Amino acid sequence: MALGVGLIGSGYMGKCHAMAWTSVATVFGHVERPRLMTLADATEELATRQASTLGFAHGTGNWRDLLQDPTIDVISIAAPNPYHAEMAIAALEAGKHVWCEKPMATSLEDARRMQHAAARSDRVAILGYNYIQNPMIRLASQLIAQGRIGVVNHIRLEMDEDFMADPDQVFSWKSEKAFGYGALDDFAVHPLSLLLVLHGKIIAVVADMTKPYQARPVKVGEMRDVETHDIAQALFRTADASGVLMVNRSAWGRKGRIALQIFGSKGAILFDQERMNELQLYTSEDPAPLQGFRTLLAAPAHPPYRDFIPAPGHGLGFNELKVAECNELLKAINGDSDAHVINFELGLQIEQVVHAMAQSAQTRSWVEI
Amino acid sequence: MALGVGLIGSGYMGKCHAMAWTSVATVFGHVERPRLMTLADATEELATRQASTLGFAHGTGNWRDLLQDPTIDVISIAAPNPYHAEMAIAALEAGKHVWCEKPMATSLEDARRMQHAAARSDRVAILGYNYIQNPMIRLASQLIAQGRIGVVNHIRLEMDEDFMADPDQVFSWKSEKAFGYGALDDFAVHPLSLLLVLHGKIIAVVADMTKPYQARPVKVGEMRDVETHDIAQALFRTADASGVLMVNRSAWGRKGRIALQIFGSKGAILFDQERMNELQLYTSEDPAPLQGFRTLLAAPAHPPYRDFIPAPGHGLGFNELKVAECNELLKAINGDSDAHVINFELGLQIEQVVHAMAQSAQTRSWVEI
Amino acid sequence: MALGVGLIGSGYMGKCHAMAWTSVATVFGHVERPRLMTLADATEELATRQASTLGFAHGTGNWRDLLQDPTIDVISIAAPNPYHAEMAIAALEAGKHVWCEKPMATSLEDARRMQHAAARSDRVAILGYNYIQNPMIRLASQLIAQGRIGVVNHIRLEMDEDFMADPDQVFSWKSEKAFGYGALDDFAVHPLSLLLVLHGKIIAVVADMTKPYQARPVKVGEMRDVETHDIAQALFRTADASGVLMVNRSAWGRKGRIALQIFGSKGAILFDQERMNELQLYTSEDPAPLQGFRTLLAAPAHPPYRDFIPAPGHGLGFNELKVAECNELLKAINGDSDAHVINFELGLQIEQVVHAMAQSAQTRSWVEI
Amino acid sequence: MALGVGLIGSGYMGKCHAMAWTSVATVFGHVERPRLMTLADATEELATRQASTLGFAHGTGNWRDLLQDPTIDVISIAAPNPYHAEMAIAALEAGKHVWCEKPMATSLEDARRMQHAAARSDRVAILGYNYIQNPMIRLASQLIAQGRIGVVNHIRLEMDEDFMADPDQVFSWKSEKAFGYGALDDFAVHPLSLLLVLHGKIIAVVADMTKPYQARPVKVGEMRDVETHDIAQALFRTADASGVLMVNRSAWGRKGRIALQIFGSKGAILFDQERMNELQLYTSEDPAPLQGFRTLLAAPAHPPYRDFIPAPGHGLGFNELKVAECNELLKAINGDSDAHVINFELGLQIEQVVHAMAQSAQTRSWVEI
Repeated sequence: MALGVGLIGSGYMGKCHAMAWTSVATVFGHVERPRLMTLADATEELATRQASTLGFAHGTGNWRDLLQDPTIDVISIAAPNPYHAEMAIAALEAGKHVWCEKPMATSLEDARRMQHAAARSDRVAILGYNYIQNPMIRLASQLIAQGRIGVVNHIRLEMDEDFMADPDQVFSWKSEKAFGYGALDDFAVHPLSLLLVLHGKIIAVVADMTKPYQARPVKVGEMRDVETHDIAQALFRTADASGVLMVNRSAWGRKGRIALQIFGSKGAILFDQERMNELQLYTSEDPAPLQGFRTLLAAPAHPPYRDFIPAPGHGLGFNELKVAECNELLKAINGDSDAHVINFELGLQIEQVVHAMAQSAQTRSWVEI
Repeated sequence: MALGVGLIGSGYMGKCHAMAWTSVATVFGHVERPRLMTLADATEELATRQASTLGFAHGTGNWRDLLQDPTIDVISIAAPNPYHAEMAIAALEAGKHVWCEKPMATSLEDARRMQHAAARSDRVAILGYNYIQNPMIRLASQLIAQGRIGVVNHIRLEMDEDFMADPDQVFSWKSEKAFGYGALDDFAVHPLSLLLVLHGKIIAVVADMTKPYQARPVKVGEMRDVETHDIAQALFRTADASGVLMVNRSAWGRKGRIALQIFGSKGAILFDQERMNELQLYTSEDPAPLQGFRTLLAAPAHPPYRDFIPAPGHGLGFNELKVAECNELLKAINGDSDAHVINFELGLQIEQVVHAMAQSAQTRSWVEI
Repeated sequence: MALGVGLIGSGYMGKCHAMAWTSVATVFGHVERPRLMTLADATEELATRQASTLGFAHGTGNWRDLLQDPTIDVISIAAPNPYHAEMAIAALEAGKHVWCEKPMATSLEDARRMQHAAARSDRVAILGYNYIQNPMIRLASQLIAQGRIGVVNHIRLEMDEDFMADPDQVFSWKSEKAFGYGALDDFAVHPLSLLLVLHGKIIAVVADMTKPYQARPVKVGEMRDVETHDIAQALFRTADASGVLMVNRSAWGRKGRIALQIFGSKGAILFDQERMNELQLYTSEDPAPLQGFRTLLAAPAHPPYRDFIPAPGHGLGFNELKVAECNELLKAINGDSDAHVINFELGLQIEQVVHAMAQSAQTRSWVEI
Repeated sequence: MALGVGLIGSGYMGKCHAMAWTSVATVFGHVERPRLMTLADATEELATRQASTLGFAHGTGNWRDLLQDPTIDVISIAAPNPYHAEMAIAALEAGKHVWCEKPMATSLEDARRMQHAAARSDRVAILGYNYIQNPMIRLASQLIAQGRIGVVNHIRLEMDEDFMADPDQVFSWKSEKAFGYGALDDFAVHPLSLLLVLHGKIIAVVADMTKPYQARPVKVGEMRDVETHDIAQALFRTADASGVLMVNRSAWGRKGRIALQIFGSKGAILFDQERMNELQLYTSEDPAPLQGFRTLLAAPAHPPYRDFIPAPGHGLGFNELKVAECNELLKAINGDSDAHVINFELGLQIEQVVHAMAQSAQTRSWVEI
């Protein structure tokens, strides 16, 4: 019988999950069409309205209703970050598969509890790190695994947007300590998820975090101190390589930049999410006067592009990465151990790096992981 | 009651229509979720299988079954080009709305008959020119209408792919005269659809068409003469501007290029579909030492981007243009006269230009339209 | 004994010649340092001042003084276009080598007379088509000759700047018919010089020319009709290929664009003079999933880059192309038949194409060459 | 009387100085043509040959000959780094102006001695940090000073080449500790010179250095341990901003990359030396839906571009930055206190940062400067 789906939250990422659940069978073809059962949101009225809009059969103002519903097999969690741990653990304990948005949790302790809940359960529990689904990232991963750029020895990771760049923007929860460190948990987790699938684990970091603006306006003539850091950067080491991580959510002009530079003993790979259908490859195996970065355009030869479009260079979008992620989740639920996902165990590794960086920024020293 | 949908054809574009019909309500929110009723394909067996995969309730081996079905309000036509005219006319005469893939027809006469059928009917009949739905194209259109680049005086249009670039590729219907001119009907219609919404009508052309390869292999040791032209180009005039149209489906390295250069008395606009989330704008109103092409990234400020993603610069994909097109079709069906579509009347104008170009290439002379 | 140099004209290109004569021995090393003897300009006062500034021993207000001067072996002609023919022919008849700026002349008849004068003489006579000296153009030429992109079957050439783009710019000689056709002789000759060294001769053309602005201001409240065409384009054929030439000197945002797209049966080459240190190569010989345009950066492996800089990717400038051209002129004077220059014979071919295009634009018909 | 010039060294940078001294008067026009007197190199034979090639009157195998020569006013030092201190101090003490290539010296102590010698003298002493002469860098500097991007709060600096990227490359002095730290002194000084003119002083650093290859081949079957670090990176703080510096001379595919990202409270600026004629500016003062990075092409409006070329977008080259630097040196010698140079005092600041970074990498801790 087809999988029954519950969704908690119907904002930005909630809608993105809904679109993925709606499209996944049509795109990938081999799966039974999921049944979109119940959408939970803050109030029953809102939930019912959004259920209708997003194609779910029912709405509820109480997310716990999903736990006991036998028609629901998997729960998408797209609620605010502080609720992730409670919801994910409850869902797993109720025997549901879990697809939880990133970041995993707002404390390392919560992330650990989530991982333990997943480990105890026989259900699938994954995180919404959809950038790893990009055909260009998968191609990069394959090229690195094949040794095309040799032994990787240096890595640079950047993630930048500008939604906090305006100093006149009013104070919001984004600047409250209770909701996290700032750019570190908001952004760093994404390039770290890419690093994990492309290269491996970070073993030591030294980090710094800064505030571009010390205070933001609350109302006319009144300012409130900013508690989070919109800019963060770290030096890091992996077993084989050195690297730098840079994240900035007040970087004017950057909108969805996630830039990777990966250097090895035989070549290099470049990527920028703002041009997500392109990958740049340099290989020293080309004849010397003809060596140059070549721009590869996403094409049917690069899975899972072909499932979306049979012609090369036509362009996937951000939302389609989520559809691909949904398909990998379905694979995992169907027992495919090669499903390309960040499960709670890998997700915990990402959280550990983020918290080590925050600790380093505070102690002004290198931290081993 | 929600709209009932029939689909003819389940190949590349058939699947693309299916994805659009599946997603449109979730993405745009304001419309009733269409009912995906019947999919028609070459055989009942194929149609039934594809109906299941693509989310339609039924499959049929006879497309005429859709005509009399009262549960079907609109028919998507994604069958091979030679069938477009017969199907579209029959559907309109049966009182169905029609969403027909491009090109309109394989002869100008057929295109005229389709337009007449649409004019006689009170149904909506549009063509699948989805590139006009790109938020960046809509932005370009708005900027031009606002006079941001002044009076347009010169235009260059290019569309290039490389699926016919390999001389060793075996002879296929793409090289048979019966299926059209070659690059002209296959490609030129797309940039011409963009020209129509961005600028206006072509009034005179002089064209040339060439074959990169005179013959292609049929089997080992046997070649067959190529009858179509994979390369075509034309000079043209509009009321205000001169221009050039260049299309090439044997252009090694080009995968989904549709490049526009539009020059006016106060600035210029550049676009390339291979980077479909970017638009370049140059305005002479910037201070002189700071004038330069600025790269605008698709963002919520550029409709209909916001319906897909609330954050800027995250990237739409080709398939999502089809979802936007579907939404405009629904608007048109709901009587919105501002729906952003290429209806059969505008589509006929595009066909007239294509045939005038083919005529010019044959007579080696300018042709007025 | 070292070569003695005379220079006529000390404007934009006159200074550029002076810089080249000054630097060529230091850069290339193998040549004797030329003696910069006499600079001729409109008046003796101006010539004397400019001679001092540009490093010439003497100045004269009469360019014919250079003809009889036995210390002068070669004459650089950087005077206004209408004087080229008279000066070049006189110089050749006086036994001087000639380095004449482009375009060759303002009429085809004059260009023919220049070519005849060169043919009658045993002196070297070349034209200032310095873009062919770019290491990236030479590399392109070599790659094409080696068959790297197979048989060339389609070519697109663009040259665009915006110095005539402002409609409020006052009427100047650039808009007077007496000084030429407009964009055709001003610009088209450059991409045509590149076509000549990269591919071969044009055998047929059909062209169009337009005026972005019908009149320009002379003084407040007074307009004068523009007589030249700032925009021109042509379809053309060579023995093997079809092509398009587009030139526009009122193209807002373009500053020094000379863009080439060359497609062959095995690959493609792209170039843009605004990024003159880059060449893009696509070869279908790369493994299929790794095919893409690779950006080659100018490097010591690409002559004559190494003579300027021993490290790759550091960037040559426009002026240095002139130094390279000067070196090729010296090679030609020293009897090297492989000197990479556009001599008067090749230059005449370029002029013939330009005039055929102008004729085609007037007769509205194809013209064979 | 015109300035007399001596040159020590005729390799890569020696030739570059010679080209600059040869061209500076022709390009800038306002200065007396320098007299190229004596070139010193390792042996008299080599020096004499190179003097002839590079346009100097005499050659000598003993650089000290230049010190007592009254015809020499200024000495260009392009000898190997370990000689810089001795030569520069001797030249200053002999009353000569000094133009010394970077890096200043191989030890901080030597750099201090050089600075003291300059301070004691009334001569001009500058370092060869030619990248600061780029019109695009000067434009960036001007834009920042005008407040166009507001208060700068974050900076990223990268310099990468690949001449050490090949693991099979034989061991050379570049891998010997005696010649420096590796990428830090070889590369970091360049972006640090740009930081100094664009923003200001670094006050704290934490750095890391790594070796992509632990050993390199000496001869067949024999490896030698690498003593230097081809990769280095640092986090830093200035009074107002945080930043990251990344340098890598084993970065496959990078040839002459010096990339800057400068973020402020009102906009951002990007630059990459591999496209040295372009600057990217984002300003939040543009209307919201039209904000984007605009690419500014070097043009006459951006000094000193106009002195080289009167038309925009035609492209300066690396060598021409040295000509511009020579012109600024001449200004400084003529007493112009606005001359745009890195004198020994500023140069010492750069050295202090480099040594602090090396110290931090060793102690694994933050270092205040």
